[in-house]
Amino acid sequence: MKRTVFFISDGTGITAETLGHSLLAQFDTLDFDQVTLPFTNDLTKAADAVARINKAAMTDDMPPVVFSTLINDDIREALAESNAFMLDIFSSFLKPLEEALGAESSYSVGRSHSIVDDQSYQVRIDSVNYALDNDDGARTRHYDAADVILVGVSRSGKTPTCLYLALQFGVKAANYPLTDDDLDDLNLPKALRAHRNKLFGLSIEPERLTAIRTERKPNSRYASINQCESEVRGAEAIFNRFGIPFVNSTHASIEEISTRVIEAAGIKRRLV
Amino acid sequence: MKRTVFFISDGTGITAETLGHSLLAQFDTLDFDQVTLPFTNDLTKAADAVARINKAAMTDDMPPVVFSTLINDDIREALAESNAFMLDIFSSFLKPLEEALGAESSYSVGRSHSIVDDQSYQVRIDSVNYALDNDDGARTRHYDAADVILVGVSRSGKTPTCLYLALQFGVKAANYPLTDDDLDDLNLPKALRAHRNKLFGLSIEPERLTAIRTERKPNSRYASINQCESEVRGAEAIFNRFGIPFVNSTHASIEEISTRVIEAAGIKRRLV
Repeated sequence: MKRTVFFISDGTGITAETLGHSLLAQFDTLDFDQVTLPFTNDLTKAADAVARINKAAMTDDMPPVVFSTLINDDIREALAESNAFMLDIFSSFLKPLEEALGAESSYSVGRSHSIVDDQSYQVRIDSVNYALDNDDGARTRHYDAADVILVGVSRSGKTPTCLYLALQFGVKAANYPLTDDDLDDLNLPKALRAHRNKLFGLSIEPERLTAIRTERKPNSRYASINQCESEVRGAEAIFNRFGIPFVNSTHASIEEISTRVIEAAGIKRRLV
Repeated sequence: MKRTVFFISDGTGITAETLGHSLLAQFDTLDFDQVTLPFTNDLTKAADAVARINKAAMTDDMPPVVFSTLINDDIREALAESNAFMLDIFSSFLKPLEEALGAESSYSVGRSHSIVDDQSYQVRIDSVNYALDNDDGARTRHYDAADVILVGVSRSGKTPTCLYLALQFGVKAANYPLTDDDLDDLNLPKALRAHRNKLFGLSIEPERLTAIRTERKPNSRYASINQCESEVRGAEAIFNRFGIPFVNSTHASIEEISTRVIEAAGIKRRLV
């Protein structure tokens, strides 16, 4: 039994998707077809959306579910005529929030995920550039500017985490790969010694590491379980020896790792 | 008059932050102190959160606002005792959704932004690696695998957009910089000709481009307004001549650009 879920917004739809995904994740036995209709900011687009919803209502066995973030009353009312179960995020929260804050909302369309100020845009771009320039130990002379330096063996998840930290939180994250040389003598690499309070480790289960490396270099020593076990053991020994906080990335999403890094390192989010 | 806003979650807090930021963006005359308390998943942490909320309530002139995504009833009730205005996202939406879907929620803690399945994790990592490997025209021989190829002058926002498309949507995005050679003869670069239906252009206002380039290379020809004007004019001429859809990134956030790319190119989100 299939249900269609719509995310409808006058902006990007990312808020509606984020909230919707969180709620739908609680219904893991059900099967959903998901459709996002962003930039639904006039009555023509609203009518198109209603037509799509009503078509899905006919095809499916049950009425579609709609998560919407729509500021304009006319568009909201047009959508309300559709044959769907509506979860209207702004109308649920905006009125109570106005009362709590003792202020009126500006009712500006597409406000979230638009550029509110050039400064936070620049922070974000700078952080992305920082992550790219200081990826994989490429340069270590800019570590003074880092909010955090992720340390771990090759393919433990350092680069995606650095990029997510930059894009989502405006955090400057460098990363440094532990190589055989570092792992042999269980010493902290020289480039990291002056920055011990910024270090954060990523570990991973050797079985998962083998699988990931095999995708890149099948049948290599690099991808072998022996090599992966030995590298992970060495990395964790270094983390423990030097008191570097670390997480195991095996069963953690990029969001979870990033949030734990921020918490553990006491980093201030630069994007709010 | 300062208000403190808390985002409290048993998981990463990203859903609460996303929704909260969207709603607070509607109150642009107010000033907020924002605090995220992720992984609030036991009663000890809940008590810590209550203490922080009550302290802020004493310091501020008005009670704090709390956006929460908490599945556990006991933790939720503990928070409800705090001196705050609570916007409880799950309790507002989960019950109605259960009724609409005719199914019970699993009430699993920290469910959103956790790894639901290894496959979507892999899609995401593959997309990030694809964006990095095919950044800035570095390689063009993997364009067959691209969902979209962003085209634009240097510093028009191509790389951050590709990375966001990868992380947020699991979309494989390559990017190709238009250089003086391409812009002189207003022809489509050879590497792009076989992929015309995948091309998407980024333009930018010359004044903004000058400002961005000046950050990287002050007083250079590269950053001069004449050079920037001429490049942008050439790029838009190419977009128009070859029917390449494009957006102006000057006043658009990375989220807006990414969403417009997905819409215009009719790309299927791989992460749902």
